[in-house]
Amino acid sequence: MLSDHLSTTYAALADPTRRAILARLAAGEATVGELAEPFTMSLPAVSKHLKVLERAGLITRGRKAQWRPCRIEAGPLRDAAQWIEHYRRFWDDSFDRLEEYLEQLQSGERKEGHHS
Amino acid sequence: MLSDHLSTTYAALADPTRRAILARLAAGEATVGELAEPFTMSLPAVSKHLKVLERAGLITRGRKAQWRPCRIEAGPLRDAAQWIEHYRRFWDDSFDRLEEYLEQLQSGERKEGHHS
Repeated sequence: MLSDHLSTTYAALADPTRRAILARLAAGEATVGELAEPFTMSLPAVSKHLKVLERAGLITRGRKAQWRPCRIEAGPLRDAAQWIEHYRRFWDDSFDRLEEYLEQLQSGERKEGHHS
Repeated sequence: MLSDHLSTTYAALADPTRRAILARLAAGEATVGELAEPFTMSLPAVSKHLKVLERAGLITRGRKAQWRPCRIEAGPLRDAAQWIEHYRRFWDDSFDRLEEYLEQLQSGERKEGHHS
């Protein structure tokens, strides 16, 4: 079975080197050589990661045969973000509960400090 | 090497059944049996997916030995969302360009319809 679009994206993001490559490309286009530099990694190893990112549509590569610069593509990142966004209320709720608790603590302090 | 936290989360999300399980748990706690129902899947197969989600911290399971209900946990989802959010400007930019283009089209139409 072919993997669905969203699964391919998340699988591509499930690696620290690939996320670091995307972070680098967020600053602008780069060649394989430029991408390999900050990592102690061979060009073939970087190329392998780039192929995973390219298959997921997270990057595209220029057509110039010699240096083929890589650039980041927004579409799959947007889709991945949109899926997670459906669950935002869960972490917002956690913060709401924390905020409530801190307010209770504060109002408790105010009561204790009533006569001062 | 142990996988980093964010990679474990994205790897857990890289499966349509696991994302469907999280969608079900977003509606409230559920037992393994309840989770298995909508999928044509054996309990052991569902349990395997639950273990991946549990290792990623995306769900926790109750302590009652008999039915151990699963519940969704916000933390890893929030972290995964925050990582992707850094790249929002890329997809917002794409929409900005689309909007610009549509505005140009509209102003063109206004010019063409100038005498009507």
